[in-house]
Parts: sequence; C-alpha cells; structure tokens
Amino acid sequence: MPYLREAWYLAAWAEEIKPGELFHRTLLDEPVVFYRLRSGAIAALHDRCPHRFVPLHLGKLENDIIQCAYHGLQFDCSGKCVHNPHGSSKAAATRPYAVVERDGLVWIWMGESAEAKLELVPDFSHMSGLPETAGSQGYLWTECNYKLVADNVMDLSHADFLHADSVGGGAFTAARQHVEEMGDAVHITWECRHDKAPPIYDQFLAVPGQPVQFRTEVRWRAPGIMNLDITITPCGGGPLQALQTHNAHIVTPETATTTHYFFWLTRQFHMEDAQINAHRHTAMMRAFSTEDKPMLCEQQRAMGTDDLFSLRPVLLPSDAGAVRARRKLEQRIRDEQAAKASRPSIEAAQRPTTQTAT
Amino acid sequence: MPYLREAWYLAAWAEEIKPGELFHRTLLDEPVVFYRLRSGAIAALHDRCPHRFVPLHLGKLENDIIQCAYHGLQFDCSGKCVHNPHGSSKAAATRPYAVVERDGLVWIWMGESAEAKLELVPDFSHMSGLPETAGSQGYLWTECNYKLVADNVMDLSHADFLHADSVGGGAFTAARQHVEEMGDAVHITWECRHDKAPPIYDQFLAVPGQPVQFRTEVRWRAPGIMNLDITITPCGGGPLQALQTHNAHIVTPETATTTHYFFWLTRQFHMEDAQINAHRHTAMMRAFSTEDKPMLCEQQRAMGTDDLFSLRPVLLPSDAGAVRARRKLEQRIRDEQAAKASRPSIEAAQRPTTQTAT
Amino acid sequence: MPYLREAWYLAAWAEEIKPGELFHRTLLDEPVVFYRLRSGAIAALHDRCPHRFVPLHLGKLENDIIQCAYHGLQFDCSGKCVHNPHGSSKAAATRPYAVVERDGLVWIWMGESAEAKLELVPDFSHMSGLPETAGSQGYLWTECNYKLVADNVMDLSHADFLHADSVGGGAFTAARQHVEEMGDAVHITWECRHDKAPPIYDQFLAVPGQPVQFRTEVRWRAPGIMNLDITITPCGGGPLQALQTHNAHIVTPETATTTHYFFWLTRQFHMEDAQINAHRHTAMMRAFSTEDKPMLCEQQRAMGTDDLFSLRPVLLPSDAGAVRARRKLEQRIRDEQAAKASRPSIEAAQRPTTQTAT
Repeated sequence: MPYLREAWYLAAWAEEIKPGELFHRTLLDEPVVFYRLRSGAIAALHDRCPHRFVPLHLGKLENDIIQCAYHGLQFDCSGKCVHNPHGSSKAAATRPYAVVERDGLVWIWMGESAEAKLELVPDFSHMSGLPETAGSQGYLWTECNYKLVADNVMDLSHADFLHADSVGGGAFTAARQHVEEMGDAVHITWECRHDKAPPIYDQFLAVPGQPVQFRTEVRWRAPGIMNLDITITPCGGGPLQALQTHNAHIVTPETATTTHYFFWLTRQFHMEDAQINAHRHTAMMRAFSTEDKPMLCEQQRAMGTDDLFSLRPVLLPSDAGAVRARRKLEQRIRDEQAAKASRPSIEAAQRPTTQTAT
Repeated sequence: MPYLREAWYLAAWAEEIKPGELFHRTLLDEPVVFYRLRSGAIAALHDRCPHRFVPLHLGKLENDIIQCAYHGLQFDCSGKCVHNPHGSSKAAATRPYAVVERDGLVWIWMGESAEAKLELVPDFSHMSGLPETAGSQGYLWTECNYKLVADNVMDLSHADFLHADSVGGGAFTAARQHVEEMGDAVHITWECRHDKAPPIYDQFLAVPGQPVQFRTEVRWRAPGIMNLDITITPCGGGPLQALQTHNAHIVTPETATTTHYFFWLTRQFHMEDAQINAHRHTAMMRAFSTEDKPMLCEQQRAMGTDDLFSLRPVLLPSDAGAVRARRKLEQRIRDEQAAKASRPSIEAAQRPTTQTAT
Repeated sequence: MPYLREAWYLAAWAEEIKPGELFHRTLLDEPVVFYRLRSGAIAALHDRCPHRFVPLHLGKLENDIIQCAYHGLQFDCSGKCVHNPHGSSKAAATRPYAVVERDGLVWIWMGESAEAKLELVPDFSHMSGLPETAGSQGYLWTECNYKLVADNVMDLSHADFLHADSVGGGAFTAARQHVEEMGDAVHITWECRHDKAPPIYDQFLAVPGQPVQFRTEVRWRAPGIMNLDITITPCGGGPLQALQTHNAHIVTPETATTTHYFFWLTRQFHMEDAQINAHRHTAMMRAFSTEDKPMLCEQQRAMGTDDLFSLRPVLLPSDAGAVRARRKLEQRIRDEQAAKASRPSIEAAQRPTTQTAT
C-alpha cells in the first residue's frame, strides 16, 4: 500500500531544527533536509543532490543557501540551483517541500508543495499554550509500520494488560466503548464507573483509592494524528475535582517498517509542579519504550511485509476503532491514487532527466 | 525444498523447559512456545497470538494458561482461547503441537498434532540410563542448513583432516566403508585395523599406542537423527578391553539456513570418572564449535540458498552415506507433499479467517 | 551490468602475499585464494573446494599444494586435484587464474587463464623504481560500486569542495579542463594559472603563497586503472622548480556494491625525506578515508542497485571524463558479452558436473 501523499505529516519538534544547522530525517522513504532561513522560517528539500545523489545535509549552509559538499552546487530554499561552479547552467534542482511550523510542531506536506493545503494544518494550540511544567514531549524511533502504532493507540484496552502498573488497571476493559466516524476522523471513547483510577492518576485524587468516573477519548485523523484526552472524575465529585489530560500521539512513516513516533503529554492539574511533570514524563517514557515499543517491534517481525488483513487476524470488538481508521486511510490513499492516475503525473514531469548542464 | 512435517524433531533438552517458565524456539521457521503443565507434561503452541501476532512467550503463565501480554487473551494447552476480556466470544485459537518427553529429550511433531505417531518417537533409553558421569550433552546454534550438519556426521572421513588432533588420526580414511539402507534408515560403517587409536581414545587403552581394531557406525533416520557408535578394540584384546561410545547427533532446522544442532556423548568405559567426562566434553565441544561449526557456516555461505546438487559438487565415495540419506529425506518430503495435495488441506482449513469475535 | 572479465585487475599489493601463507580476497564476486610457490611466483585459485564448497584458504599449504581442511583433497597451483584420500580418482578441480606480479603489484586476469594477455599487464615501473621515502601505498575497502570511485578520480573538481583544506583550493574549478579519448584510454587534464597552490603543495614551493601554473592529468584505462600526475610550477620558475607527483588510483570490484580501492602516491621532490613522506601519507589517508569514502558510501546508499544513468543525474561539464570512461567500459563489456555469446561457453564447459569420483 503506497503512502498518502497529500497530507500534513509531523516531521519534527520545532526545537530539533536549529538556526544555522542542517537537520535531516527520512519521511515516507524520502530523505529530507530541513533548515531555518534567516527569517526563522523552516525550509525543506529533498536531501539528495540531483548531480551525484549525495545527501545535501553533508554540505554547508550559508545565507539560506545549501552548498553540496561534493562538487559545490548551491541550492536555495526553493530547491533551485543558484550557483554552479562548473559551468554557467543552473539546470539542476532538488525538490522542495511545503513546511509549516505551528504550536511547536513542524509539519510537512508530502504531496506537491504548490498544492499544500494550509487550512488543513493540524491545530494543537490548546496544548502549546500551557506552562512548560504542564507538558512534555517524546520521540521514539520504532521498528514497525506506522499503522501498528496507530492501532496501538486506537485500542487502549491493551493498557490494562501491557501497562497494568501505570495507565492500566482494568478501566478500559470494563468500559463501554463507543466508536464514531466524524467525516474524515474516527472517534473512540471508553467510559465507565471504576473502583479505582489507573495507578498513574489515583495518587492525584483528593481521596486516593476512591471510585471514579473514567472517560478516555481518542480522535484519529489521517495519516496518523491522534488526540487522546482523559478525564477522571471522583465519584460524587464535580468537574472541578476531575483530573484531565490532553495528549497527542502522532506517527509518521520513515519507511514501510520503521516509524517516527511523536508523543506529547499535557495535564490540567498541578500544572505548575515541575516535579510531577518530570515523574509523569519518566513513567510514560518507560511505558512506551519498554512496554509498547518492544511489543510493536515483535508484531512487525511476525508480520514481515504482509498487510495486516492479509494475515487474517482474529479481530476483537476492541479493534473496531483501529479497523475503521485503517479503512478510512486506505480509502483516502485509493482516492489519491485514482486522482493521480487520471491526470498527467506532476512527479514524472518534474523528475530531472539526464542532461549536460553547461 | 519444504521441510518434512510428519516427523518427530528434537525441540530441546528436557531441562531447558523449566516449571513456571515460557520457553520459546523457532523450529522449521515456526515460532513455538513451550511450557510445563502442573502435571509436569510439556505443552507446545504456535508462539503467536492470533489476534495481533505478538509472541505468546512475552505473556504470563498461570494455572496452565498463557495470557497474551498485549490484550490479555488467554489460551490453554490445546491452543484454545479460554478467556477473552473484550467480549464473550473465544473464537481465537493458536495451533497446538504434539510433544513427547522421553529419555531427557523433548520431541515435537511438526505435522497435525492429532496425527502424531507416538510409536515413532525415537528411543534413546540406552543412553539415558547411564550414570551422569558417563555422558554429556551440548547444543550449538549453527548458521547452516540442517542437511549440511547431517552430511558432516554421515561422512566421518572429515575427522582425519578437520579433527586430526582429537577424533581423527587416519582410521576413517584407511577404513573400508560400508553403506546400507535399512528401510527408512541409512547405516554406514567404517571398519579397519589401524596402527593407533584416535588421540582421544588412545590414552584409555590398556597399552596406549598399540594397534587397534576400529569400528564406527552411524545410523541415520529422517529428519536428521543420527546414532553414532564407536568401538575400538586393542588388537589381540577381547571385547572386554574395547572402548565403546554411544553418541547422538540430532539436527532440527530453525530456518532454511540455521540449525539447532544437539549432540549427546556417552561412553562405556571409566563410566564413574567425572574428570574424564569433563575432559571429554570439553574436547568435543572444542572440536564441534571451533572446527565443524566454522566449516559448516563457510559452506553455507558459499552455497547461499542453492540446493547442494544444483551446484554440481564433485562427489567422492565417502559421500555415499550422506547422499543416500538426502535422497531418502527428499523422497519422504515428496511423498508427504503428494499426499497433502491429494486431500483437502487441513492447514488451510485450520487457518483462522478474519472475523470479529464479539 | 556484468563485469569485464578479460582484463587485468589489481588483486593485492605484492607484500600482502607472504611465503607459506594462504591469502584470500573476493574479486568480481568470486572468492580467490593466493599463495607463493617455492619459486616465489604467485598462484591463484578459485577459493572453493569443488567437493563441498568450503574455502580452500582454510586449508594447509605444503610443497606448493593446498590441502582442503575439510576432507583433505589436495590441489596444485593449476587447480588440479593431485591427491584424493578417499579414492583413486582425482576428477575434482578448481579454477586457476593467471596472475602477474610486477612493480610490487599483483595483477589477476579474470577471464580464462589460458587467454590472459601478458602484454596488457599495466606498467608502473616509473613509480616502483623510486626510493621508499618517495612513495606510499594505501588500501581502502569501500562500500560502493567501483565505478563510483573511478568517477570520483575522473572528476577532480570535487577536490576544491570536499578537500578544500588539502588538495583543493580552487584550482580545478578555475582550470580549463580537456578530455581526450586515446584508443582504449580516457585522458583528462586540468590546467590554469592560479593564485596559490593547493595547501598540501604550497608549503614546498621556494616561495610559499606565490602564484603557480597548475596542471593535473588523469589517464584512465579499463577496468578502473587511473594514473594521476600533478605538476605545480611557480610562475616565472622553470621546470626545475616544479613540484611533481605521480600517483595511481586503482579500483577492483569486490562485489557490485563494494570495492577494493588501492592508491599509490609518489613524488619527485624531497624524495629522500621520510618525514615529508609520512606527513603526506597521513594527509592523503585522512582525505580518502574521512572525506571521499563516506561520500562514496552515501552515494551508493542513495543509488541502491540502480545504474547511474537510469537515475537520470543532472550531468555537469566536469563529468565529461567520467562519463566517457563509463561509456568505454560499457562498450568493452558489451563486446565481450557478444563475443562470448557467439562461441561455445568455455565457462559452462569447464563447470564441474556432479559426478562420483571413485
């Protein structure tokens, strides 16, 4: 299955791209080099010199121009060759990508840059506006297909088993689960009254150990952007006593079998407490890196390059959200491929041909 | 060439499978998880949850039941799902294997468990009954096809060159070799009068350095079970003065290019001497791991995934036993494939289909 | 694209092949074992026993004969089996290669040994005759196709960017470049008056920092043998004041994506100064191993197994020499393949067939 191209993918945390430096990351099998213009805006180019195919990130950045390390061709932020030390022609060009920095996130449009739909850039302003002590970000390079990470978040029932000591505790399994398609999105909620909050929350209740009303919602959008909101209200307590977190789990394929997994955790309680923030970050990092990630990698290893459905898994009711998200993504990709087939290929037209640039 | 399925393969030494633990090993490209029931009997299941394909050995064992680490499905020793925390259905199942523990060896039937032929479990009681000081076992994970290890044992003439300092000494090359097919088995014997016993035996003769009558016999059975008996009788001495060893060399494919190589050495002389036993174990381990194993791995590397015969080797008379064993194994596999083609595939019928288990 | 077979390839520096030892190296995907006969001459055989395909270099060398480590077959320097411990037949044979040692270099003919054209062995006597303190040799195992290393040497304009601190300095880019085909060879020269000599030369001028007449010439021959001569003459100074170096860059494919890169540097100035020689060696090793080699490996990684031209690179005028060399090599290979197709295949006729050698 090809990737969805006409979509915003999370490429990096904003602070990963530092002034004066060339940052590179492979996205959807394409090497991309990122850098900040003197204006502060971020540029992104195919990280491959069109002359001899070496990575541009090995070169030098000066005055918003990258000079290739091998033969000195210079490219501006549009991908145009602006200096060719070996002749007057500047026919060479590398592909530019549309990039948007918003809410501390760097989004890249993997379709034609000219067709990037700015109005579709995901909005995380409700999380970026919080104090530093109320949130933390993490990144895990994970050896599995990105859809497996999405499946993992879309079926949080796994928390009761894989994360029994932290975010689990039986509430997901006990909950009534509700899946809904909202246009391009898939929403899934788990809701129940439970004897006790998950370990990681219980300690922050006014009266630890008390029964709670438990509500978790995941909102998925293509290609793999998930908002995850949790609300834990002590039974008998009002919304003021509720513990609330807003989180994002965002996956970007590196290759068919490796994924850039970004997660961002924020909370609405004890928001100024740096220590709680640090503890929470450590607990979540531990859960993701020592519980989720190994499980996802084993899953990938067992599946090889086969498609999930071709392996005929026994599906459970708890898979409903993940399966609908997969179906929606597949439909989007099929639509995109069909549209592409019915018009002259821009990619083919743009692809440089062998030519002597004199 | 596919594997022979309807056969007993050596899966493990009995002590590798400990009470309360999940043991896993890949056999014939299939991941298998083993554990002991409370009764002491050994169970074996396909080491893959039918829901999301993660290895069951990452899960928990309690009351003879494995709980998958990811979403908590529970399976009994027949592979049946006996608890599904996410719905009432227990449609999921994983494949069980027939397993027999005998003589300290754990045998697994890689065909349909219901069709396992108990009467065919190999008998090593003549070796398992000996005192602990008269035998030792070893295991080498070897990066080559299992048939190459069998070839190695079936042509012991290599000992005179590769193991000149231990089990070699020229006797095999000097011997008259006799190959015989006995039903499903191939027997090969080397017999001669030789000036001196191989180094590893000579020291135990009543008069070291004296000429001996040398006899070695290898009895091969599919898929790769070899008994190797050696008798060294001092010339002029009677059977009471003979040095005798009974050994087993057993190979089980892990994948097409990796092998579980089990060997078991016992002797009929100085049977109570722990020191001799330890020395002998060390010498043999050294020979197998530093002389045979590297040679086999280089051979595999040179051959790649090609079949031996397709590479048109120059065959020597000393290959006769190995070649007959290969031909017998190939015939068994062809017969099995033909039988399989002529009846409805049990495997296909058993394979789970995508289904929502509610 | 197959390899050119009927050509001399540099296999090793002469001192790599020591008396009494078996030296092995893979060339054009073929494992080859080399050794010195008692006469001092070098023999080369396919490094694979025709019986069980293990490397002959694991065996023993005695009296110009290799004994295979596995079953003791013995081969002489013509590849003939001269002793078979397991029967009277000596049908087994391994392929011999024609080898010539000249000027401290070991050349191997990768076509039929009987057809080796001795008159084509490259001549480096102008470099081998110099004092030890006037030259140095290096070897880099490089993870890229051999043609990429040749491209690198054939377009020295890269020196101004990749090696700005050592052999670069702008002279190549400033120079007029002249490419000429001379029969089977491609010659490329760069010539200009330049403000300053490259850093590695400037220090040796009578008056450092002075303008120079700069001339570099690379002469390529198939399959990948390059002479590289540099002459730097101070402006106003005569030939007596010129700094001159003769160098060789020679590439031999190990596999399609790995290369044996041999380089040999000699100079015509301060020829008795061991310290200058050592400094120069260190500087060049640093440039090749930390600047060229990583760039070549990245280029290979980006290109995968695709042919350069199929990837439609934007070619620059500075590629002219490299492209002509590639075209010439391709033509030679096509001619060779066509000639091979039109006569009975010697290779096929020579290839041993499965046979029982009794």
